[in-house]
Amino acid sequence: MRLEVLPVEGIGDVRPGDDLAAAITAAAPWLRAGDVLVVTSKIVSKAEGSLVDVPIDGDERVVARDEVLRAETARPVARRGQTRIVQTHHGFVMASAGIDASNVDRAHLVLLPKDPDASARALRTTLRERHGLDVAVVISDTMGRPWRNGLTDVALGAAGIPAIRDHRGEVDPYGNELSITQMAVVDELAAAGELVKGKCAQVPVAVVRGYLDPPLPEADGDGAAVLVRGADQDLFSLGTAEARAEGLRAAARLSDHGQPPFPALDELNLEKALTRALATITPGSTATFAADLLPGDGDRMGRCRVVCRPADSTGAALVSLGADVQRLRAALAAEGLGSMMETTEDGHGPHVVVTVR
Amino acid sequence: MRLEVLPVEGIGDVRPGDDLAAAITAAAPWLRAGDVLVVTSKIVSKAEGSLVDVPIDGDERVVARDEVLRAETARPVARRGQTRIVQTHHGFVMASAGIDASNVDRAHLVLLPKDPDASARALRTTLRERHGLDVAVVISDTMGRPWRNGLTDVALGAAGIPAIRDHRGEVDPYGNELSITQMAVVDELAAAGELVKGKCAQVPVAVVRGYLDPPLPEADGDGAAVLVRGADQDLFSLGTAEARAEGLRAAARLSDHGQPPFPALDELNLEKALTRALATITPGSTATFAADLLPGDGDRMGRCRVVCRPADSTGAALVSLGADVQRLRAALAAEGLGSMMETTEDGHGPHVVVTVR
Repeated sequence: MRLEVLPVEGIGDVRPGDDLAAAITAAAPWLRAGDVLVVTSKIVSKAEGSLVDVPIDGDERVVARDEVLRAETARPVARRGQTRIVQTHHGFVMASAGIDASNVDRAHLVLLPKDPDASARALRTTLRERHGLDVAVVISDTMGRPWRNGLTDVALGAAGIPAIRDHRGEVDPYGNELSITQMAVVDELAAAGELVKGKCAQVPVAVVRGYLDPPLPEADGDGAAVLVRGADQDLFSLGTAEARAEGLRAAARLSDHGQPPFPALDELNLEKALTRALATITPGSTATFAADLLPGDGDRMGRCRVVCRPADSTGAALVSLGADVQRLRAALAAEGLGSMMETTEDGHGPHVVVTVR
Repeated sequence: MRLEVLPVEGIGDVRPGDDLAAAITAAAPWLRAGDVLVVTSKIVSKAEGSLVDVPIDGDERVVARDEVLRAETARPVARRGQTRIVQTHHGFVMASAGIDASNVDRAHLVLLPKDPDASARALRTTLRERHGLDVAVVISDTMGRPWRNGLTDVALGAAGIPAIRDHRGEVDPYGNELSITQMAVVDELAAAGELVKGKCAQVPVAVVRGYLDPPLPEADGDGAAVLVRGADQDLFSLGTAEARAEGLRAAARLSDHGQPPFPALDELNLEKALTRALATITPGSTATFAADLLPGDGDRMGRCRVVCRPADSTGAALVSLGADVQRLRAALAAEGLGSMMETTEDGHGPHVVVTVR
């Protein structure tokens, strides 16, 4: 197997209503069955009219841009300075929701295509039905990623090619089952296309030849949507600073209700968790804490209560006890443990019982 | 410009001490000046002896594997179930520190090369000096990434090619400065290489031809190390669950010291921040809070104090006041505001003054 990656030059400026299939086949009469077309999302957006009018400068431009960003945002993810990382309505996590002010006149912003998989399918259908071409289509855009500098192109949409190459169940020559099972090949095709698009001026389409063997299946497949991982499945659904602030706010909301705000990170070991929580709050506290651990039986997790007594019976010591108890509950919540507090009184005076559950 | 991506077949099994340059040139006598060799890190590790002995099964294997992971980890990043995402000593953020048990016998684990840029430079030098080949080298490995399903290949090391193609200062045909400035081209080359390596059995090297024009510069360049983004620069340096727990623990540690545990997310507006903090804690509180805002003058940010009074003067109400004050301080910390608390007394009885700073 050998691949060729070829630029499609001479497509020129694309305007709303333009026929992309006609523009691509005119510029690349050499296209043939089995080719994968890697099409920059921007020309798809332009052809589909996914543009918004904005003032060409001044504060009005900034305000308009902010409004467009808000409309394109399904969920804010992280921010720092002017950078806004958001999840779009498609599910993509991108800086500025993929809104782009380059390669367009100052009076417009280019949005992402409304449904990039549908765009890929429509282009593929037109190429087949009107131009007799049996090809696959990948709609690409440029994204950053955590942990690594520099951007790469990835796939927003796909038709005629599975987004993922699945090695599950394959075995290596040593008899080990392969641990790397699912390769996002449409992202790799987008990256390969960018290598030729980015080095030439004004090349919005590249062709990868040799990856697929014609005839291609008629079905378009599931598209690039399968690459989108939902926030509930993602270990990095929020920026670190945003998630820390969420933790602090959760501590601020810990009042009467007894549920932990977030699930435990580790398998719960009540005794270890309690020890860690007490170690966290002991510095800076004058109260005393006596933990009473009732081991669990069978399926039932152990329970415990912590009797928290003030340094003395002055008003200041009681207020301080309340603050320390609240700190203990935050530390328990960090372990995934819910708690309740109850103020009571005995021969030694007022004190608090924290029940962990 | 057109690229070819070609597999190097027939390299066979690689063992510690093997001469990779000799193995590659024997398998690919067709290599020529300007080629970019994309070399799977695993064969580099094997040739360099970056392997560790492990028991072939049982609990001992699990324990040994955990120990190896610990040794390869510079910083834990996120975990869920059996998944461990860590930052390696190189700075890469990868599942299981890139340790691999596939394509190796059961008695060994393959670690990442100790210094992949140095490995790339050494291989390039040998190819030039002993085989007369003027090529660039990329050492690749497979990584996952947040927000998207499926894995892609990226570059761990590079020599003879800049890791990043920099468009800064370039202008589009409309006169806009390009917003996408730095492309991680060695990652895109690694991805292009994977397309041919992954579809063939046992192909650890691919060649990208046509991307560079010979003669190549003699200098090896900065390597792939420039792609590593430090945790301090990264918006996603910790998993969401880990960062939330950090926020809860920070709330638990808020005792006498007055510094906020984390910087503010937004430009600070004291009045808005205070209003949000009070709104967060009011549900579930029986205390009363009277805020007193002293506006800032010039460069100096405004200051404020909040007088917090208990529902009544019973011990239970004082304990509850302490808890509520601690919740207020956590809510203020979520806004990036430090605070101090002081218990005092006046004609109305004991109360707390929270000073924000």
